[in-house]
Amino acid sequence: MVIKPGKLLAQIDSPDDLKKFSKDQLVQICDELRHFIIDNVSVFGGHFGASLGVVELTVALHYVLNTPDDQLVWDVGHQAYGHKILTGRRDNFHTNRLYGGISGFPKRKESKYDTFGVGHSSTSISAALGMAVASKYKGEQRKQHVAVIGDGSMTGGMAFEAMNHAGVSDTNLLIILNDNCMSIDPNVGALKDYLTDITTSHTYNKVKDEVWNLLGKFSKFGASAQEVISKVEGAIKSAVLKQSNLFESLNLRYFGPVDGHDVNHLVEILDDLRDIPGPKILHCVTVKGKGYEPAEKGNKTTWHAPGLFDKVTGEIYKKTPTSPQAPKYQDVFGHTIVELAKENDKIMGITPAMPSGSSLNIMMKEMPDRAFDVGIAEQHAVTFSAGLATQGLIPFCNIYSSFMQRAYDQVIHDVALQNLQVVFCLDRAGFAGADGPTHHGAYDIAYFRCVPNMVVSAPMNEEELRNLMYTATKFEGPFSIRYPRGQGVMPEWRTPMRQIPIGQGRIVKEGEEVAILTIGHIGNYAVTACEQLAKEGLNPAHYDMRFVKPLDEELLHEVFGKYKKVITVEDGCLMGGFGSAVLEWMVDHGYQAQVKRLGIPDAIIEHGEQIELHRECGFDPEGIANAVRAFAEVELPNK
Amino acid sequence: MVIKPGKLLAQIDSPDDLKKFSKDQLVQICDELRHFIIDNVSVFGGHFGASLGVVELTVALHYVLNTPDDQLVWDVGHQAYGHKILTGRRDNFHTNRLYGGISGFPKRKESKYDTFGVGHSSTSISAALGMAVASKYKGEQRKQHVAVIGDGSMTGGMAFEAMNHAGVSDTNLLIILNDNCMSIDPNVGALKDYLTDITTSHTYNKVKDEVWNLLGKFSKFGASAQEVISKVEGAIKSAVLKQSNLFESLNLRYFGPVDGHDVNHLVEILDDLRDIPGPKILHCVTVKGKGYEPAEKGNKTTWHAPGLFDKVTGEIYKKTPTSPQAPKYQDVFGHTIVELAKENDKIMGITPAMPSGSSLNIMMKEMPDRAFDVGIAEQHAVTFSAGLATQGLIPFCNIYSSFMQRAYDQVIHDVALQNLQVVFCLDRAGFAGADGPTHHGAYDIAYFRCVPNMVVSAPMNEEELRNLMYTATKFEGPFSIRYPRGQGVMPEWRTPMRQIPIGQGRIVKEGEEVAILTIGHIGNYAVTACEQLAKEGLNPAHYDMRFVKPLDEELLHEVFGKYKKVITVEDGCLMGGFGSAVLEWMVDHGYQAQVKRLGIPDAIIEHGEQIELHRECGFDPEGIANAVRAFAEVELPNK
Repeated sequence: MVIKPGKLLAQIDSPDDLKKFSKDQLVQICDELRHFIIDNVSVFGGHFGASLGVVELTVALHYVLNTPDDQLVWDVGHQAYGHKILTGRRDNFHTNRLYGGISGFPKRKESKYDTFGVGHSSTSISAALGMAVASKYKGEQRKQHVAVIGDGSMTGGMAFEAMNHAGVSDTNLLIILNDNCMSIDPNVGALKDYLTDITTSHTYNKVKDEVWNLLGKFSKFGASAQEVISKVEGAIKSAVLKQSNLFESLNLRYFGPVDGHDVNHLVEILDDLRDIPGPKILHCVTVKGKGYEPAEKGNKTTWHAPGLFDKVTGEIYKKTPTSPQAPKYQDVFGHTIVELAKENDKIMGITPAMPSGSSLNIMMKEMPDRAFDVGIAEQHAVTFSAGLATQGLIPFCNIYSSFMQRAYDQVIHDVALQNLQVVFCLDRAGFAGADGPTHHGAYDIAYFRCVPNMVVSAPMNEEELRNLMYTATKFEGPFSIRYPRGQGVMPEWRTPMRQIPIGQGRIVKEGEEVAILTIGHIGNYAVTACEQLAKEGLNPAHYDMRFVKPLDEELLHEVFGKYKKVITVEDGCLMGGFGSAVLEWMVDHGYQAQVKRLGIPDAIIEHGEQIELHRECGFDPEGIANAVRAFAEVELPNK
Repeated sequence: MVIKPGKLLAQIDSPDDLKKFSKDQLVQICDELRHFIIDNVSVFGGHFGASLGVVELTVALHYVLNTPDDQLVWDVGHQAYGHKILTGRRDNFHTNRLYGGISGFPKRKESKYDTFGVGHSSTSISAALGMAVASKYKGEQRKQHVAVIGDGSMTGGMAFEAMNHAGVSDTNLLIILNDNCMSIDPNVGALKDYLTDITTSHTYNKVKDEVWNLLGKFSKFGASAQEVISKVEGAIKSAVLKQSNLFESLNLRYFGPVDGHDVNHLVEILDDLRDIPGPKILHCVTVKGKGYEPAEKGNKTTWHAPGLFDKVTGEIYKKTPTSPQAPKYQDVFGHTIVELAKENDKIMGITPAMPSGSSLNIMMKEMPDRAFDVGIAEQHAVTFSAGLATQGLIPFCNIYSSFMQRAYDQVIHDVALQNLQVVFCLDRAGFAGADGPTHHGAYDIAYFRCVPNMVVSAPMNEEELRNLMYTATKFEGPFSIRYPRGQGVMPEWRTPMRQIPIGQGRIVKEGEEVAILTIGHIGNYAVTACEQLAKEGLNPAHYDMRFVKPLDEELLHEVFGKYKKVITVEDGCLMGGFGSAVLEWMVDHGYQAQVKRLGIPDAIIEHGEQIELHRECGFDPEGIANAVRAFAEVELPNK
């Protein structure tokens, strides 16, 4: 099923086509674009609210700018569906986020209009500034460089680092602040309050309106926007703009706030801003989910990525399982931390802007003084946790594996070097699935394993996650627990918690000739593989190691004493990962064995369902079974 | 030789002792403290300008605060010498930064007054906020939490993340902005300009003075500072403070700017601020090097850490070598990038606030439009470089190994996933030396090796550094080159550059029985070891691998085909590092050999001279020789 676009949108294969329409037709184009997004996402899934919120901005930008020569960088990229549809991807938009289909985020490989690949937040100003500085160096004076960044992303520190540089850069950089008061969850922090203040301040808006009126008036008489600005600036800037504005403090000329849903006004403004040199910021107020009532009026977090829904009624389809289902690891985390915190008043919860994604929202609701959303601010989240830990508290800092990359220094420098008791829950470890390579949690085992004092663990099921969380509260040092996105395997998951000796693995299944060592949830694939292999008369042993660091040395002595063929399986990178840890141990202890390491190869793995990606990398159940079969056939080479 | 303190300072073993003196005596105490720092650093070395700049602030803080119950966090920590001297470390201050001596930075293990270990910048607000939130949670309402942060550190994004959270935190957090217009090099960016604007604005200062006068007047009549503030606030805040101030935008009550060298005024202010609840910022203007004329008037970057000097004349001692010396790797980098850039107009240079440390200042001087100091902003530095690379330029992004940890996500997400041609020069790879564990570049091989598309290389000498830099300009993808702090081995280093095939190592010395594989500068230790071993009749082979990734497979086939005893040597962590890469390759290719991996163990290694630390870890020349000797004696165990 392919969704039919409206009749104007059907004629737009590129921004050049868009420019052929008159300004009068832009409202209709916006309407068609919005409905095309609604029609597609309701049926095929994907991110929703963010793209609806920037329909007008997207149309206005491509109408005014000379893309792709003028360069447009979308921060994060959840909001870029309209951009994709207008830039040649309308007809395969139904493949969005599917294995082999187009990416859910802008991606350089996919289109020349995608100037910069995104997925993580707060990168757009740095990237666009790099482009702008390159243009300046090359003498391309008229070229425009635009970063569109949300108020949530603006809380990420690197956005501030970039503005500090941009303010002294003398480049044609336009930052568009897409202010909708939301990250995925509601945005938090002092900046959000400040932006709301500006937007609702009467004095401020009055002056702002006067500026724009002046602009309009002068324009009609042929004066350029540049002349006008410099004329009114002396009077206005010192009175209000410069003195009253955070962005002007950083030497970014500030414009706004403007209504981000008035496409014709946006076109005028963007057109005027082209003539104003230097770094500047346009503050656009938008509504996430705009134009689709259930999303606009309903729970914005739910409508960020609602899954499939009935576009007429707004009813979100729920899978109705026929049998009891295992819970998501996320919910096990969310409920278990509350359970632990009720017994232990030292426990605190921290998330950088992922309350609902991580399910820390359960604790935030039940114990608001003990659970913190600190905004899109992974670095701060970790060092803030370290500060709590110095006072004898036990912070559980929950960060997605791929976002933890952003706090790597803080983990080493502020937590591990001081051996502080911070529990890192690495959500979305392994393949993220449809979000693709920017979000895959591929590297954490390798990058955490080398950090002194750090315990690196991964549960194979819900019970182990609970036991590891409990165990972490008893360990006086940094402790990491990685688990994947999605469901576990235990419908009856509320097991009593017990402390696991640090570094202790377990034998899942005795066997012969070949031993399979697994870490984490992926061990369940080995169970499936062993069931299949049993039918073929093959009987490998299976060990669930539970800890990458420290390794269970007793178990490893058993394994390498007994087996000369060993397979390691991990949902993480092969370079330096769990398998490498096993090799290091083996060689350090003078053992010799054939070892086949299964895991994520040294390559960029694209998006798709998790199982599709596991299959691609050869560690789905069949891949594991194949490795055992190969070992059964081949004898040890004698080199 | 131990330096004698002045007669008041001699009586101060703790802040309690300091508090016994009257306010009248504080100026003398500051004077004695300043001279004690000058006397020590001139003779024993260390950081200099920063601590002189905060002598008054340090005395005032410990005089007013109830440390260590009140919590004081120093950002970076270069400026904490005075703090150390006042808090029980006066008498072993002469061991500062020496092997086995006290650390050059605040360190929790060292003193209860060191509330948080530091070294990297911009962490203090997050850490102090964590402490403040813990106090709030525990109901310790009067406890004070102070972060002292420089204007340079304030440009680091995580400081902004922390302020965004602090502004809505309702805690007793006081941020002291130590504004001296300097990082190690002069501070850069829009924020610096803004702070200068505030400091020099007449209107602003007039109002500010009125506020303080009012405060003083009311205080005399017994009104509390809190009442006064709330009284004047209505009038002042909306007119100037709130509306005109970046920090007030973030809901931090702003005070200042004040003279950071008037100790009695500082005491009054800090005393008043204790009574004002909520998050707040005090803007202190200080002079780096204050009170020592050569430092105050001279080159502030030089006087950041001048080495030994004659305190009377201000003459900095220079080592006068008797024979031609090998250059520092830093200078080889600095001169070579200029040489390359003259031939190739695509080459650009980027440093986050380390122009002189990295020697990129050579390029900044010769080609100011092509070399950028972006401030203390590693994240931005990397993504800005990525932006440049999208436009076909070739950025050389020079970041110290331990600081690169802070841009890890940007390396993966913005550079490697997009396979952009950014050259990462990882300075200070391996042990940093006297700066200690916060600055050791121990992990980069492990954390870069697992990143797809990334080339990981390390030169054994100056010629190889030049060749690798040249080679990187020909490689269309991310390319990292790690090299240590300090001197190379080639006095005649300006060799003609040639392209090295990616992944090609070289044989340094043929041999028998044992092969030593080294990566980087540390290979020179293997040369020394081999010379010694030759005298003992031992003749190991030595290979300089040059690349950790990709590995030289042809060479490895030769090595493992020929030798059953292999030693790997790296100046990096053993977990997941170069040695592990060799093990992975060996096992993947079915070879069997005894492999001894030498490198940094999984532990925190403290500060000291590089060679002292290499010895401690067993990979100094003698350690390498011992590994060969051990192999010569022991036969392959048969497990």
